[in-house]
Amino acid sequence: MNEQQILDGVSRRSVLQAVGASTSAGVMFAAMGAIGMAPTAAGQPGAQAWVPPGRSDFNLTGRAKKKVVVVGGGPAGLATAYELQKAGYKVTVLEARHRVGGRTLTIRDGDSETDLDGVKQTARFDKGIYMNAGAGRIAQWMVTMDYMRELGVPYEVFTNANADAYLYNEKTGSTPGNPTRYRTAKADVFGYTSELLHLATDQGALDAQLTAEDKENLRAFLRSWGSLSGGKYSGGSNRGYSTYPSAWNEHGTALPGPGSMSSVLASKFGSYFSFEVNWEQAMLMFQPVGGMDTIYQYFAKQVGWENVLLNSPVSGVKNTPKGVTVTYSPTNGRPKQIDADFAVVCAPAGLMRRWDTNWGSEIDAALGEFAVGSPAGKIGLQYRSRWWETDHRIYGGITETDMDLAHVWHPSYGYGAKKGLMVGYYNTGANARTYADLSPKQRQARAVALGEKIFGPKYRTELESSFSIAWHKVPYIEGAWAYPNTSSARFKKLQQGVGNTYFAGDWMSEISAWQHGAFWAARYSVQALHQRVMST
Amino acid sequence: MNEQQILDGVSRRSVLQAVGASTSAGVMFAAMGAIGMAPTAAGQPGAQAWVPPGRSDFNLTGRAKKKVVVVGGGPAGLATAYELQKAGYKVTVLEARHRVGGRTLTIRDGDSETDLDGVKQTARFDKGIYMNAGAGRIAQWMVTMDYMRELGVPYEVFTNANADAYLYNEKTGSTPGNPTRYRTAKADVFGYTSELLHLATDQGALDAQLTAEDKENLRAFLRSWGSLSGGKYSGGSNRGYSTYPSAWNEHGTALPGPGSMSSVLASKFGSYFSFEVNWEQAMLMFQPVGGMDTIYQYFAKQVGWENVLLNSPVSGVKNTPKGVTVTYSPTNGRPKQIDADFAVVCAPAGLMRRWDTNWGSEIDAALGEFAVGSPAGKIGLQYRSRWWETDHRIYGGITETDMDLAHVWHPSYGYGAKKGLMVGYYNTGANARTYADLSPKQRQARAVALGEKIFGPKYRTELESSFSIAWHKVPYIEGAWAYPNTSSARFKKLQQGVGNTYFAGDWMSEISAWQHGAFWAARYSVQALHQRVMST
Repeated sequence: MNEQQILDGVSRRSVLQAVGASTSAGVMFAAMGAIGMAPTAAGQPGAQAWVPPGRSDFNLTGRAKKKVVVVGGGPAGLATAYELQKAGYKVTVLEARHRVGGRTLTIRDGDSETDLDGVKQTARFDKGIYMNAGAGRIAQWMVTMDYMRELGVPYEVFTNANADAYLYNEKTGSTPGNPTRYRTAKADVFGYTSELLHLATDQGALDAQLTAEDKENLRAFLRSWGSLSGGKYSGGSNRGYSTYPSAWNEHGTALPGPGSMSSVLASKFGSYFSFEVNWEQAMLMFQPVGGMDTIYQYFAKQVGWENVLLNSPVSGVKNTPKGVTVTYSPTNGRPKQIDADFAVVCAPAGLMRRWDTNWGSEIDAALGEFAVGSPAGKIGLQYRSRWWETDHRIYGGITETDMDLAHVWHPSYGYGAKKGLMVGYYNTGANARTYADLSPKQRQARAVALGEKIFGPKYRTELESSFSIAWHKVPYIEGAWAYPNTSSARFKKLQQGVGNTYFAGDWMSEISAWQHGAFWAARYSVQALHQRVMST
Repeated sequence: MNEQQILDGVSRRSVLQAVGASTSAGVMFAAMGAIGMAPTAAGQPGAQAWVPPGRSDFNLTGRAKKKVVVVGGGPAGLATAYELQKAGYKVTVLEARHRVGGRTLTIRDGDSETDLDGVKQTARFDKGIYMNAGAGRIAQWMVTMDYMRELGVPYEVFTNANADAYLYNEKTGSTPGNPTRYRTAKADVFGYTSELLHLATDQGALDAQLTAEDKENLRAFLRSWGSLSGGKYSGGSNRGYSTYPSAWNEHGTALPGPGSMSSVLASKFGSYFSFEVNWEQAMLMFQPVGGMDTIYQYFAKQVGWENVLLNSPVSGVKNTPKGVTVTYSPTNGRPKQIDADFAVVCAPAGLMRRWDTNWGSEIDAALGEFAVGSPAGKIGLQYRSRWWETDHRIYGGITETDMDLAHVWHPSYGYGAKKGLMVGYYNTGANARTYADLSPKQRQARAVALGEKIFGPKYRTELESSFSIAWHKVPYIEGAWAYPNTSSARFKKLQQGVGNTYFAGDWMSEISAWQHGAFWAARYSVQALHQRVMST
């Protein structure tokens, strides 16, 4: 097994099986490191089935460069183009919209969007203020981190959770102007549930499950986790203060509460907490400095802007005996065609089904399984002051509510600056449709009226401008995400591609709606395409 | 009640009592806002007893400027000088060390420290690499945030908790090379404890505590929080993966485990979790960009570097009939004296007791209550690669261990850069003494030998340089912190000061060892001093 064989497309799995069969795990890890697939310490993410096409594939083998048309300039499309070009392919990216990035849309001052109803908005933000209208966060384990590193994109913490952000549940008892901070809600929920389990343990109710030593370990945990004293929860400093301790004799002023065990359980605040331990959402998370689409500016620069055609919606992809013919219609221009050896299509499934293709009914049915994107909406609210920081002491994080706003995001950048931008709602499903059906002005009015209940009058009086998005109304995107049935036979069809056409997108992954999913789908398509080229 | 009366020193409390006695809480809040003390929405931190001295006090009243010597250029000293100077006082800061900031020490390339044993270290770090050798984190509610805003210090998230950082408990079963990630430990501990409480609830063991509705609410919380299925915990995605899901048919490879309920409880990993909900430590937390002492560079610039005398250790502070006389000995110079109207002493209590003073035995006894600082130590390890990010996917946060390293910090800055600096240990008490008694080279050797057990060979092979600190051996500081008995009569003595001498420092606060405590102690001393000046 030499390097050339690996580059020629021998699969990672067989490499590792060959190495692993006769050697220790340590040697196997080292071999994985040597071919650029895996870090080598224990406890770390394992290898993925990705062998990047080699830079020298075409030079060394004498093969002619292959030409690939990539349809779509979002994460999957640009990663496909980037990886293929690194290996010596000639790539052209056709992007239907006026910008790259797809659903990683960042809105800055002067940016305009016109929706499917013809409603146009133009952002009026100050310099330095931006809104991530789509993707906003990146988990550490995601391959997105690697692409940021490889491309040199600077990044910073995305504040996905904050002990000082609020919970405001109108349906279960919160009253206007009376939100509860996460830290208070957690202290109460963890305190009372720890008290209950401590009691049950003491009473012998769990003797069938626990040894004496188990019980001792359990009680020690509960005392610390639930701030128990004598087995009881009765509040304490972890709830926060109305006036925090300072110096001299200022020991702090306690918040009202805690309420009864029954009222704390009835608040349903506890239902928000699992988010923070979720595998995709647990902190620490990250964002590129300056806006999510920065990643795609870097990608496009690497691919070469001359190879990325904007405002070029595709209307047809056909397999031909020699390759593919892709038809697109540049805005303000006549329809054009490109012939290439391959196409990799990274567009929403619903759009593809409207094109002129010869992919056959099986592919059409496969695309049909997730052809309708789910709705999701966001509104960015620029404020002339950062009142959430100065008045509420909330520096980043997410305030949650059972109102139709759903999630309210405090900005993860510009701390301490004069102005800032809150995401006034990030909602999905029926809530997103509710806002989508309003005019931008009405959306702002509703968001402000509800947000004011949580944050008080400055939510209205400090507002300067807003910009809202309804993803199912964005031309050439038409939805926030779509989930495939990854175990269906049809889904496997899409992985094989059809003729000289391959497919990629987050919707072809286990983790739809994440850039990680888009990148891995792109990698697998690139790998499949490249193996085919190298084997012929 | 007019503004002048407020400035003249009427206490906050009496203002509020006067307003509150006859009006609604809303009016009271508005009044608090009007005198710059409190934001006005509900659920936010309340007012603190701080009325900044007015800029115009001396101009308007015709009083002569008063001269104040501030002893100590750490947080308390510089905040004292800054606030007094804003109000028109003439201030001189005497700092014993070669730099300002005290225990907010940031070590950068070329910085040298010589300890009480005469051992000198000089940092050999790359440009942009720094080590916060002392204070490292700031909570949102702390007044430190306000000073950063007021001074214009840029700041960013300090990563005090990370789901992907490790737990490594040698005493309770962790084996070399087999650390457990926080997310895995949390899933298991929360999963099993939720299962136990769910079971006890179902079995009726808590019927005396819970109504039927309580039980329903409780079970719903436990199912979500503990990832229960059919009331049972059996692992799941929140534990993380050895290979994360990607695209196509890669559904991820599960980590080994979970272990039995008994083994999870015996790991004692759960004992680390309360840190994250602690009132002082809960995320989000912050740090100045570029190092903690940046704050004091900004303070000193505001105060005027010409008013800050470095290398000027004080050896005497005496009250005189007209004010104070302070004696100090500039390095490489003859002892000098300054006469002033007042002194505010912001130095460690143990040092003051060695000076030539005429403060009397009561003050001496009061200082004696916390004259010995506690030990704490840190080592900064510069690595030629950020292997914790690339190999372990840990971007920031703290790895915890029961080895004598105690806390291992992953850097909160420079993500994705080539090199980086880990804090190899942050320990206190006996552990800190253990390392303090070693040479810098021996400290590094021990830290690396233990850290290697957690992180593997790169912990040694990638290391370029180190710098360690033992706070109880730092000249003119001699300890990490000291906790006052805030309810003792002697502690109140210190608040009153003695003659024309006042005291300030984090050790005069409820939250010793935090800049917040130092700032508030400074504010209270400034306020007491100023009230006295304005009332005579």
